[in-house]
Amino acid sequence: MPLGQRAGDKSDSRFSGVEVLDFPAGECLPAVLSHSLSSGFDFLLAPLVDPAYRPTPGAVLPVAASDLVLGPSQWSSHIVGKLSEWIDLDAEDEQLRLDSELTLKQEVAWASHLSLQACVLPTPRRSSCGNYARVVNQILQGLTNMQLWLRLPLEKSEPMDGDHDKVKNSDHMTEMDDSWELWNSFRLLCEHSSQLCVALDISSTLPSMNSLGRWFGEPVRVAILQTNAFLTNARGYPCLSKRHQKLMTGFFNHSVQTGCSQVMKATMKKMDPLPEQERFEINYRDFLQSPLQPLMDNLEAQTYETFEKDIVKYTQYRRAVAKALVDRVPDDSVSTTKTVLMVVGAGRGPLVKASLQAAEETGRKLKVYAVEKNPNAVITLHSLVKLEGWESVVTIISSDMRCWNAPEKADILVSELLGSFGDNELSPECLDGAQRFLKPDGISIPSSYTSFIQPITASKLHNDIKAHKDIAHFETSYVVKLHRIAPLSPPQPVFTFNHPNYTPNASNQRYTKLQFDMPPDMGSCLVHGFAGYFDSVLYKDVHLGIEPSTATPNMFSWFPIFFPLRKPIYVPLGSPIEAHFWRCCAPTKVWYEWAVTTPSQSPIHNSNGRSHWVGL
Amino acid sequence: MPLGQRAGDKSDSRFSGVEVLDFPAGECLPAVLSHSLSSGFDFLLAPLVDPAYRPTPGAVLPVAASDLVLGPSQWSSHIVGKLSEWIDLDAEDEQLRLDSELTLKQEVAWASHLSLQACVLPTPRRSSCGNYARVVNQILQGLTNMQLWLRLPLEKSEPMDGDHDKVKNSDHMTEMDDSWELWNSFRLLCEHSSQLCVALDISSTLPSMNSLGRWFGEPVRVAILQTNAFLTNARGYPCLSKRHQKLMTGFFNHSVQTGCSQVMKATMKKMDPLPEQERFEINYRDFLQSPLQPLMDNLEAQTYETFEKDIVKYTQYRRAVAKALVDRVPDDSVSTTKTVLMVVGAGRGPLVKASLQAAEETGRKLKVYAVEKNPNAVITLHSLVKLEGWESVVTIISSDMRCWNAPEKADILVSELLGSFGDNELSPECLDGAQRFLKPDGISIPSSYTSFIQPITASKLHNDIKAHKDIAHFETSYVVKLHRIAPLSPPQPVFTFNHPNYTPNASNQRYTKLQFDMPPDMGSCLVHGFAGYFDSVLYKDVHLGIEPSTATPNMFSWFPIFFPLRKPIYVPLGSPIEAHFWRCCAPTKVWYEWAVTTPSQSPIHNSNGRSHWVGL
Repeated sequence: MPLGQRAGDKSDSRFSGVEVLDFPAGECLPAVLSHSLSSGFDFLLAPLVDPAYRPTPGAVLPVAASDLVLGPSQWSSHIVGKLSEWIDLDAEDEQLRLDSELTLKQEVAWASHLSLQACVLPTPRRSSCGNYARVVNQILQGLTNMQLWLRLPLEKSEPMDGDHDKVKNSDHMTEMDDSWELWNSFRLLCEHSSQLCVALDISSTLPSMNSLGRWFGEPVRVAILQTNAFLTNARGYPCLSKRHQKLMTGFFNHSVQTGCSQVMKATMKKMDPLPEQERFEINYRDFLQSPLQPLMDNLEAQTYETFEKDIVKYTQYRRAVAKALVDRVPDDSVSTTKTVLMVVGAGRGPLVKASLQAAEETGRKLKVYAVEKNPNAVITLHSLVKLEGWESVVTIISSDMRCWNAPEKADILVSELLGSFGDNELSPECLDGAQRFLKPDGISIPSSYTSFIQPITASKLHNDIKAHKDIAHFETSYVVKLHRIAPLSPPQPVFTFNHPNYTPNASNQRYTKLQFDMPPDMGSCLVHGFAGYFDSVLYKDVHLGIEPSTATPNMFSWFPIFFPLRKPIYVPLGSPIEAHFWRCCAPTKVWYEWAVTTPSQSPIHNSNGRSHWVGL
Repeated sequence: MPLGQRAGDKSDSRFSGVEVLDFPAGECLPAVLSHSLSSGFDFLLAPLVDPAYRPTPGAVLPVAASDLVLGPSQWSSHIVGKLSEWIDLDAEDEQLRLDSELTLKQEVAWASHLSLQACVLPTPRRSSCGNYARVVNQILQGLTNMQLWLRLPLEKSEPMDGDHDKVKNSDHMTEMDDSWELWNSFRLLCEHSSQLCVALDISSTLPSMNSLGRWFGEPVRVAILQTNAFLTNARGYPCLSKRHQKLMTGFFNHSVQTGCSQVMKATMKKMDPLPEQERFEINYRDFLQSPLQPLMDNLEAQTYETFEKDIVKYTQYRRAVAKALVDRVPDDSVSTTKTVLMVVGAGRGPLVKASLQAAEETGRKLKVYAVEKNPNAVITLHSLVKLEGWESVVTIISSDMRCWNAPEKADILVSELLGSFGDNELSPECLDGAQRFLKPDGISIPSSYTSFIQPITASKLHNDIKAHKDIAHFETSYVVKLHRIAPLSPPQPVFTFNHPNYTPNASNQRYTKLQFDMPPDMGSCLVHGFAGYFDSVLYKDVHLGIEPSTATPNMFSWFPIFFPLRKPIYVPLGSPIEAHFWRCCAPTKVWYEWAVTTPSQSPIHNSNGRSHWVGL
C-alpha cells in the first residue's frame, strides 16, 4: 500500500508530503497532520524523538508522541519518521559514535513499534561513511517491512565535514562531490538491500540531465523540494523553474513521491492521465518474465489473442507484402502471374490475412500456404479459412516448417518468429530450415533483423532477481516492460541475420564485442545489466522494431529483454564499458553468454547455457 | 598425486620437467620420454596434435601418438599436454576463431581421453581475450579432474598482436604489459575456476621482486625456464643468475614445479631439507580451520598436549613473571613478602609451572591460585600438584573466572587466553571479569595485546571457501598456516586491549579503519582477504606474538587468522586499499565485521555475526 490514501491510478507517485522541521512534541502532531491533510498533502515527514536527547542510562526515550496519539493506520499511512539529524556515526569522537549507534537503533526500534512504512536516515556528514553503513546494515538484517530512506542532496552544495585528505585516490574528491557516489558506496556496503532506499533533497541548483538521469534507475522513494527550490512568479506565488518541473515530471514518471521541506502549499502541476497503452502496460512495469519457448511449447489461445490485437504490427507486414508483390509482379503481368506465398508459423492466421489484404490492395494474385506446427492453432486456421471463404486460395499445412516437404517453391516467405532480442526465439534456425522451399530469387519477409543492447541502471530488477538466491536467475534473460531504469549509453547493434542466406557453411553462432561510452557530464554509474531490443527490416524501407530511437509507434507485441549481471559493475567517470555477447549453438539448443571486461571483469554468464537456453 | 614419481617429501615442487619443442609423432614419444626420465626429469610437456592440422570435415585428428603408445599411468604421470599454439580465439578473422574453438575443444577432449593431469593452454596472443576465456570457461564446466594451465610470460618482452588502440582507458597499456593483468582478467571471466592454473615462462629478464611476489598467491603450477634464462658459467656450463635462483627458490617454497624449454640437463640446485618445525606444519599448509571456541567448548586433552609442547611460549611467560616478581618485591623484602599470583585459565598447569619456576629463579615467595573452568583439566591439575608436591603453594579453583568469588586479591594475574588475532578468543571479556580480584596496583600478564592485519592474494584459500557454495563460509575467519599466499602490504595494528583497564564504561567494541599502500613497483593485484596476527606485551619488554616482523621465533601455538572477502577485490596500480574492521559485542556473543571501501566497496561481512561469532 503506498503512503497516502487518495483515490487514483496504481502509480504511487501521485502522493506528496510535507516535512516537519521543528519537533512536534506531545499532542501537537495530530494537529499538524490534520492541517496538512486538509491542505492537500498525503503524509508527514516528522521527527520521532526530541533532537536534544542523548543516550542516558535508564532514561525513557523522549518521543514526539506516544503511540496512542494517532491510530495505527494513521501512523502507517501518514507518517514517515525522520531520524535525529545529530547522529554522526563516522565522527572522530568515539563517544559520539557510540551514542549515535545507540540512538539510531532505538529510534528505528520505536518506528517499527509504530508500524511506520519508512524512516528517513539523516544525510551522511562525511564522504566516508563505513561505520554508518555498518550500523544501518545491521538494522536492515532485522527489519521485516519498514524501509530506510537515506537522505541525500541531489547536488552537494556545501563541502561535507571532511576526511577527504585521508584518501589518496586522485580523482576521489570529484567523485565524492557527487552524492550518487555516496549512495552507491552505501548500498554496496549494505549488499543492495531492497529496504534501503533514497530520499533526495532538491534545492535551487540542479546538476546536468545526464547526471540526474542516473537516479531514475535507483530506488528513490521521495524527492524533497527545499524552500529554495521554489521561485516566485509574477503574481508572487511559489513556482518551479522549467528544469525543476522537468525533473519532477521525470520522478513522477518513475513513480517517485514528492515532499516539501516545510509547510507550504505547493501547487503541484496536475499530471496528465496515463494514455491507453501505458494503462495496459502498468501492471507489467519492471515485472520479469521468462521469454517464450515457441519452438518447444505450443502457445495458448490467450497468447495468440493478445498478439493478434497488435494492429500496427500487421499493418507493417501488409505494407511489406504489398511492396514485395509489386516488385515481383509487374503491372502488365498481374493477370497471368500467381505468386506463391508461404506463411511459416501461421498461428491463427493474422499474417495470412495481412498477405491477402496486400494482394487485394495491389491487385496481385496469390496462392497461400499456411504452415503451422501447433495443431491447436491449425484448428482455428481451418475455421478462419472457412469463415472468410479463402478455401481456393489458402492451403493449410499442419507441420513444422523445418521438416515440411513443400510441393512447390515459394516466391515469398512470410514469418513472424522474432523475439524481443530478434533472434532469441530461433527465427534464424527456423528460416534456415524453411529456406529449402524458397525460390532462388525468392523474398523473405523479414529480410533481416538486428539485436541491440545498452547498459542500464536497474536496481529494482537486480533486487528482484537476487531474491531467488541463486546464480541461475542472474544468467537468464527476461522479457520486461522497463520502467524504473536509467539508460546509460545509446543502444548498439549486436547480431544481424539476413534471409535468405546462401553463404556456404553459414553458422548462426555470433560473437560481438561492444564498447559503450557514457556522456561526460553524467558522472560515475552502476550497471545492473543490459536492456536488449531488436529492429527488423521486413522488406526494403518497411521495418518494425523496438529499438528506442527507431521504435515502431504504438506496437505492443514486444517488451524489451534484460540481460542481468550477477554483480553490478561500477563504472567510474570517464571509463567506457566493454561488453561481450555470444550466441552459441548446439544440436538441440541455442543460448547466449555475456560478460563485461571493462572497467572490470564479470564472470562469463551462462556458460554452456547452464542456466538458460532455448530448445530447438 | 603430483606429476612425477620420485621419492621425496610431500611437497610437489621437487619435480621438474622438459618441454618438447618439436612434434614427436608416432613412436617417437616413448623414446623422448625415456631419455628425459633417464636424464633426471620427471615429466614431459609435449604437443598432442600435429601443429599443421586445421579442422577439416571428416578428418581424423592427427595426434602425436595413439593412446596405446604409452601406458595409462605413463600418460597421466609423465605427460603434460601442450595445446596447439596457432590457436587464436580473439582473431579478427572469424574463420580462424571458429577453427580455433573447434581444435581447442578437440585437443582437450583427446587429453581427457588420455587421463592427462594437465594441459597447457597457449599464451594469449592479444591483451583482450574475452572469446578465449569464454571457450576455456565452457571447457572447464565439463572437466572433472584435468587442469588447464594458462601459459604466460613472467614478463612480457614483445608487444602482443595489438588491439591496444581500441581501448581508451588511459593506463590500460601499462596494465596490460603486465602478464599478471592478463591472468587476472582471464580467471575473473572464468569465475576463479580451481582447475584453471598458470604455467609461467621465465626468460632472461625478470621484473621487480614485488611484482614477482604476487605470483606466490596464484595457482602457478609450473615455471618454465626458457633457454635464454640460463647464463654460462666460467666452465661453460649453463647456470642461473642470483635473481633467477632466488625466484626459483621462491617458487620451490610455494610448491611450484619447474620445467625447461628444451632438452637440456639443467643442474637444479639441490634444496635444503625442510626444518623440523616446517615438517610438522606441512600438513597444515593452507588448511582452513575454524578458530577455537574455548569459552563455549572445553578443550580436549590432545589440544592441551599440543599447546603445552610450545617451550618458547612458556619461556616467555616465565621471563615475564620473573620480571614482575622482581619489580613487585624488592630484594630486601623477599623473605617477608608472599606474592599472590592467580593463573586464570590454568588448563593442565603449564603457566603454574612457569610461574613457580620464575619464583624459584628470583627467590620470591609465591601463593598460587589456579583457576580453571574445564572440570576435565582440573582433574589433571590435581594430579600435577600432587606429583610435583605443590600442595602448600597451589590452590586449585574449579570455576569460571568471570564468576569466581576470590577469597583475597591478587598481585599478579597470569593468563594465556589469546587467539591468533589476539582478542578473538575473548580474552578481553574474561580478563574484565577477573579484574575484580586484582589489587588496584596489581599486574596483568599479558599487560596488552594488539591485533594486526595485512591484505593478501590467496587464490587457493578463496577456492577452498568457494567450494562450500554459501556466503557463511566467506564471512568466517579461519586459523590457517599460510603458504601459497602473497602478502601485498606490511601488517598494520587493528585493535589493542590493555589490562587491567579501569576506564569507566569501557567498551570492548572496537572500530578501526586502515589504509594499505602497495609498493609502487608491484603492479596491480587481487586481494582475496586479510591475514591476521597478534602481538602481546606480557610484561614490559617481554612480548610474544606472530606478527611477521616481530614474531617470536620457533613458537608454534598460533597460526595466522584469515578473514576472506566474498568477492576478491582488484586493486589497480597506485591505489591504496581502505579496510574497516569492527569488533562487535552483544550480551551473549562477540563477532567481527569487515569491509573494504577503496578501491571499491565490498559488502559488510558478517553483519550481526550472522555467519560467525564467538560465544561468551
